[in-house]
Amino acid sequence: MSKRTYAILGTGALGGFYGARLQKAGLQVHFLLKSDYQQVSQYGLVVESKDGDFSLPQVNAYNDVEKMPRCDVVVVALKTTQNHLLPQILPPVVKDDGVVLVLQNGLGVEEEVAQIVGKISVLGGLCFLCSNKVGPGHIHHLDYGQITLGEFASNYHPTGITDKMRQIADDFQSAGISMDLAEDLLLGRWKKLVWNIPYNGLSVILDATTDELMADVHTRQLVEQLMYEVAAGAKSTGRILPDSFIQTMLDYTVKMKPYRTSMKIDDDEGRPLEVEAIFGNPLRKAQAAGVNLPQISCVYQQLKFLDANKKR
Amino acid sequence: MSKRTYAILGTGALGGFYGARLQKAGLQVHFLLKSDYQQVSQYGLVVESKDGDFSLPQVNAYNDVEKMPRCDVVVVALKTTQNHLLPQILPPVVKDDGVVLVLQNGLGVEEEVAQIVGKISVLGGLCFLCSNKVGPGHIHHLDYGQITLGEFASNYHPTGITDKMRQIADDFQSAGISMDLAEDLLLGRWKKLVWNIPYNGLSVILDATTDELMADVHTRQLVEQLMYEVAAGAKSTGRILPDSFIQTMLDYTVKMKPYRTSMKIDDDEGRPLEVEAIFGNPLRKAQAAGVNLPQISCVYQQLKFLDANKKR
Repeated sequence: MSKRTYAILGTGALGGFYGARLQKAGLQVHFLLKSDYQQVSQYGLVVESKDGDFSLPQVNAYNDVEKMPRCDVVVVALKTTQNHLLPQILPPVVKDDGVVLVLQNGLGVEEEVAQIVGKISVLGGLCFLCSNKVGPGHIHHLDYGQITLGEFASNYHPTGITDKMRQIADDFQSAGISMDLAEDLLLGRWKKLVWNIPYNGLSVILDATTDELMADVHTRQLVEQLMYEVAAGAKSTGRILPDSFIQTMLDYTVKMKPYRTSMKIDDDEGRPLEVEAIFGNPLRKAQAAGVNLPQISCVYQQLKFLDANKKR
Repeated sequence: MSKRTYAILGTGALGGFYGARLQKAGLQVHFLLKSDYQQVSQYGLVVESKDGDFSLPQVNAYNDVEKMPRCDVVVVALKTTQNHLLPQILPPVVKDDGVVLVLQNGLGVEEEVAQIVGKISVLGGLCFLCSNKVGPGHIHHLDYGQITLGEFASNYHPTGITDKMRQIADDFQSAGISMDLAEDLLLGRWKKLVWNIPYNGLSVILDATTDELMADVHTRQLVEQLMYEVAAGAKSTGRILPDSFIQTMLDYTVKMKPYRTSMKIDDDEGRPLEVEAIFGNPLRKAQAAGVNLPQISCVYQQLKFLDANKKR
């Protein structure tokens, strides 16, 4: 069993789920909480899951990062809308030879984290997870869970498969979480954006589920156009997404059960939207390479308006 | 006093207002109605107006175009979403040497009408009118009312100022409606789209008034980008809209009272949206000239979805 210790920054639907699975597998895990701190420090975590329900009556819960031990692996599981907190909460909790694992949506988050932690290794994970927090310390895992893992290097140079990736993948796999290792983290992030940009954006703007967007000939076409703009953005950073990948994503979504996107759930529950990580950063990356993405830009500006003027 | 007779096809907020003003000025006017026919044939029309309230207890009301006399000027005052009716209702009511005056939003409507009426002259009017129908035969005129008038020629060739334009302008001006004569109808239509495309589209998609769109830095920028795309569309048909015109429209809208656009009113009241006339036709005109308008296309596809999937 691995001796690596884990810190989970943000014990919600995602951080709570993965952290609980790691602890259940015998790893030492430390959870940072905010609103659920009292509940979780007294009663632990409850996970209802399609893979089997379980509870952890006792967990290492903290409401202050200064009280946490330095850990080998620090998992950033906050929403990106909370990333202004990272300069304050990351440095105290990561060991000098530790790693930071960013389990967030969007693009560019590893760069931000690397600027904060200096020479410490930064890895990024793309989570394919359907999970909700249904109450304090109470997580409902609906589907999926696998993670695509890559390592960050300056300017997102591809790193290939590294030892650090293998070690973390071993820990997660011992906890029953499947991890695909990606030789090129940036390519992986663009691939995920092919899905996230059209469906997250349009689901909020048009108050629609994925099946509704795919059933209408016009939004079906707009989804595809947005996917091709994501591919143009990827290309502006030297990453090629083949047309066949886009067609696969479209077919896959048509066959999915009707799905309410994570951004739509955030919007419905009155939470801030991850507009900058998912839309703003890719736009700026492409812009910096001289590439304009007009339809993604349109959706971005609409989302910024809706995020700032919530009345629904 | 002019001897020209007028038919008003569509006696709503717009057709009812202009028709009533023409009759009040002494012209012979015949009104085609649908849902309000019983009320108006018995009690006439009532106009509450910032220019003075008036009522016309007796009007020539029809619910069947076959019962109407052929007229010198046939005013098309339906919403463009009703234009599938035109092949049936236009030919019986226009004199052989008469004219059709299209008072509708968007682009391309004169072309459709010309195909229906053959050699009969077609004019187009761009109405700057704030008016609502508040009950059967009861119109509330809130503001403005002036019309920019142009004549249609094949392929929208500019006609200059024609005699027919002067005659109609005389009639309207005798009724207190100011008419500007445009030498180039197509240029006039593109100019109006500079305002209509961003504000009508975004007001529906984002559930917003003009002041809200202008107060937010992101939608303010999106409005401006959409205006520049309209200018690109105009250019694809050989019409130049100077940048200064766009800046004037932006400044003008910032200074306007908070305004709910006509498409937003249609949407709020559950009526079909004029998406094809205002968005689809300009897109297709530009496309035919090889010019892609990606942000207008994005807004178009979103509106088509909302129009077909009303749940608000």
